[in-house]
Amino acid sequence: MQLYSYFRSSAAYRVRIALNIKGIAYEYLGVHLLKDGGQQLSDGYRALNPSALVPTLVDADVTLGQSLAIIEYLDETHPQPPLLPADAAGRARVRAIAQAIACDTHPLNNLRVLKYLKRNLQVSDDAKNEWYRHWVGLGLAAVESMLADSSSTGRYCHGDTPGLADACLVPQVYNARRFDCDLSAFPTVVRIDEACRELPAFDLAQPEKQPDFE
Amino acid sequence: MQLYSYFRSSAAYRVRIALNIKGIAYEYLGVHLLKDGGQQLSDGYRALNPSALVPTLVDADVTLGQSLAIIEYLDETHPQPPLLPADAAGRARVRAIAQAIACDTHPLNNLRVLKYLKRNLQVSDDAKNEWYRHWVGLGLAAVESMLADSSSTGRYCHGDTPGLADACLVPQVYNARRFDCDLSAFPTVVRIDEACRELPAFDLAQPEKQPDFE
Repeated sequence: MQLYSYFRSSAAYRVRIALNIKGIAYEYLGVHLLKDGGQQLSDGYRALNPSALVPTLVDADVTLGQSLAIIEYLDETHPQPPLLPADAAGRARVRAIAQAIACDTHPLNNLRVLKYLKRNLQVSDDAKNEWYRHWVGLGLAAVESMLADSSSTGRYCHGDTPGLADACLVPQVYNARRFDCDLSAFPTVVRIDEACRELPAFDLAQPEKQPDFE
Repeated sequence: MQLYSYFRSSAAYRVRIALNIKGIAYEYLGVHLLKDGGQQLSDGYRALNPSALVPTLVDADVTLGQSLAIIEYLDETHPQPPLLPADAAGRARVRAIAQAIACDTHPLNNLRVLKYLKRNLQVSDDAKNEWYRHWVGLGLAAVESMLADSSSTGRYCHGDTPGLADACLVPQVYNARRFDCDLSAFPTVVRIDEACRELPAFDLAQPEKQPDFE
């Protein structure tokens, strides 16, 4: 398998975690989101991924974008260890936590959105950072409630096995820290993030340990 | 089952389509996103859905937010007719199309985001509408490529049976039309949207046919 990734992309970070949990070896192909006007916007990359976003996974004749779709694909093609629980209600809960991050939070703070705020709307750096923290705050508050108020939460987001929701949580918390978001209202999020980062699968997926880190 | 919905919410619209395709009867509970300062922000609704977004599905003791998680839950608990294909690569393709809409496009144009642009960033109506069309244009361009360049595309997004991707596509096209987005570059999207809307499951899910429509 090949993974087109950028060390700092939180969507790519999710997939790296999933690949590591599964123990799948893969070739890392860096796509620099800032160099060359954005390598993800090149015709060559767009032919692989029409959304012009990272990550893209290539598994023989299957080429896939969208981090959550990729992770579910990995879970279906490499079932052990599972990244989703076996029961429908549990699976839905894990997906809902993942989507509270991947649909409600991260898309608002993606690089292309921050660029649009600056270039097209002439937003100041301060207002841009406030925007970032606003959506992270709302998103993590929702996730904190989903975690703190449920008896399904364990050492990780769902029970005592790391899975899809954790693979989304850790990169989001990483981003939040990078933008100095206040995490004090999210103790369960912080606790689970720490528990995850102790695992080699998460540790080796962190931006600082990628071949294109700079 | 009960569905907390708002007639115009495109995330709720997706779930209404899925419920109709499955032939599942449900109680419609309107959550008015504009009245009372936003009924979704009330403590009562937040207790059901900490993200304070519609939709929320209640199925006996299971309470779920996130439209994609809800649709996959319905597909797992009511397998016929399926909303996802049987093979892992096909499932991933359908999920990736759905997520190109639900993660990359719609979250940027959600009501709360448009409000933030107006209230917090003092963006003009023209600039707000340009923002809307920009993200719809990028999102639908990606979806158009995914559809037009694949032999898996049929009468609907994946083969000749409507499913998860179609349930996301039709509400997104509805939104695009509401904001006068130019769809001329997306002929496959437009063709599939039309084919879907001929089906009663899609027709009955449209905003104009909901009990809270105004």
